[in-house]
Amino acid sequence: MMLGGIEAGGTKFVLAVGTSPDSVLARHVIPTHDPATTLAEAAAWFAGRGIGALGIGCFGPVELDPRSERWGFITTTPKPGWADCDVAGYMAAALGVPVGFDTDVNAAALAEHRAAGGGAGSLAYLTIGTGIGGGLVLEGRPVHGIAHPEVGHIYPRRHPQDVDFAGVCPHHGDCLEGLAAGPAILARWGASLSDLPEDHPGHAIIADYVAQACHLLFATTAVGEVVIGGGVAQTPGLARRVAARARELDAGYLPGGARHAVIRPRLGGDSGIVGALLLAQGTAGA
Amino acid sequence: MMLGGIEAGGTKFVLAVGTSPDSVLARHVIPTHDPATTLAEAAAWFAGRGIGALGIGCFGPVELDPRSERWGFITTTPKPGWADCDVAGYMAAALGVPVGFDTDVNAAALAEHRAAGGGAGSLAYLTIGTGIGGGLVLEGRPVHGIAHPEVGHIYPRRHPQDVDFAGVCPHHGDCLEGLAAGPAILARWGASLSDLPEDHPGHAIIADYVAQACHLLFATTAVGEVVIGGGVAQTPGLARRVAARARELDAGYLPGGARHAVIRPRLGGDSGIVGALLLAQGTAGA
Repeated sequence: MMLGGIEAGGTKFVLAVGTSPDSVLARHVIPTHDPATTLAEAAAWFAGRGIGALGIGCFGPVELDPRSERWGFITTTPKPGWADCDVAGYMAAALGVPVGFDTDVNAAALAEHRAAGGGAGSLAYLTIGTGIGGGLVLEGRPVHGIAHPEVGHIYPRRHPQDVDFAGVCPHHGDCLEGLAAGPAILARWGASLSDLPEDHPGHAIIADYVAQACHLLFATTAVGEVVIGGGVAQTPGLARRVAARARELDAGYLPGGARHAVIRPRLGGDSGIVGALLLAQGTAGA
Repeated sequence: MMLGGIEAGGTKFVLAVGTSPDSVLARHVIPTHDPATTLAEAAAWFAGRGIGALGIGCFGPVELDPRSERWGFITTTPKPGWADCDVAGYMAAALGVPVGFDTDVNAAALAEHRAAGGGAGSLAYLTIGTGIGGGLVLEGRPVHGIAHPEVGHIYPRRHPQDVDFAGVCPHHGDCLEGLAAGPAILARWGASLSDLPEDHPGHAIIADYVAQACHLLFATTAVGEVVIGGGVAQTPGLARRVAARARELDAGYLPGGARHAVIRPRLGGDSGIVGALLLAQGTAGA
């Protein structure tokens, strides 16, 4: 069966069709405008390609409770026009196919879990870019809980060389996203992390915050690895610094800790769209 | 079938038999001595009671990987004599019945999940006593990951009125357990939390640390509730203070947050032993 996938992000939608998550036959990227324009453009690209199921890994917050009338909606996003948007319902109606739907980061986590060998493995996928979000696959299953994880909004300890910056999260000020996402880096140092000189303290500061998130994911969920993706995570050396700092925070204590890893995505930039195709496959098989 | 359960703690073992997790017919408590004495005493109590399966909720760290030769062992505990102790294997050999085995806090989380209605619900059980530990049931399943959660060893932000205390965790100093478990409270203020006057700043300080743990459990795992048990959690007013502080930390942001709850155990002090009987039931049915 031909599968369709959408990696629905706040700045762009990545569309793909393939006969399996590994076999992408065509791919297309459109900018994220208002919902009516963007969703219509996406539906038009899929029309006539004969897909039998569609998977959507979506920016959020989203509604994932299958018992809810708002399943498949983006709910309370500050992004203009997108709050209360029925993304899954629109695409299902436009294309007449079953739709699988999850967060963008859960889709990426599913794809990375499969790339790591699948089975009962446990990992987290953390994206560090314009915002910070996390997806979880525990013992082979994506985690939703009563909604979905929002790992970007935990409160790391302030780094001793970063005590004056108030943080840029409109909700929490100096939560992880408010301290370590791209806009927070730009606000403090006027450049992206990869553009800062190698000896700039920003590298250790951001690595410390991300490492605290990795440590608490290891401690609270016992994942074996945290995969860090997104634009900021592409900074050379960051994953290595984060891994070293997370080991310091653990101090050899956590059970299974010797196997803890902080790594870059096995699928490079494709985790999200491969995850969307996996969601399509899961829906088609359901 | 008659079920046996052991809530294996560092200071006492609670033993029980019952025809179901709700129907305890007999119960017995023994102090935790060295493993040989304690396990023999436990086995002797069960002998002749006709149990068909045994469940053990055990202090840890423990090995939970069913593929490991050390499944059912306590692994690296500092408690004298108990490191590398084959708890499940001893009891299986002594009683000749199948043994279900998990952490004490996962057992308690399972029991509280069932008491809350069961099904696909998600909750965390946090015990705050001599140490701090957490169990997780997500969408109806206990979480093991590659080992098991150790929520006590995350690093909360220091409270502004508690900046000088170094913390008492031998591994991490001022991690959650090093700041908010019973020994840390005693070290700072010379009394248990429930013995401090109502206007003592310790109440707000400990509530803040526990609330940070609740917030990060809500944020990372999207549980609907955190059940707080253990001796410190019996302090009048603590659960209410923690719930209020966790709401402040969320600031109305997290998806599903309106349904977040911090509560005392529905089963009172019985969560652990009921959970052990549930583990027995699960093994008997497997």
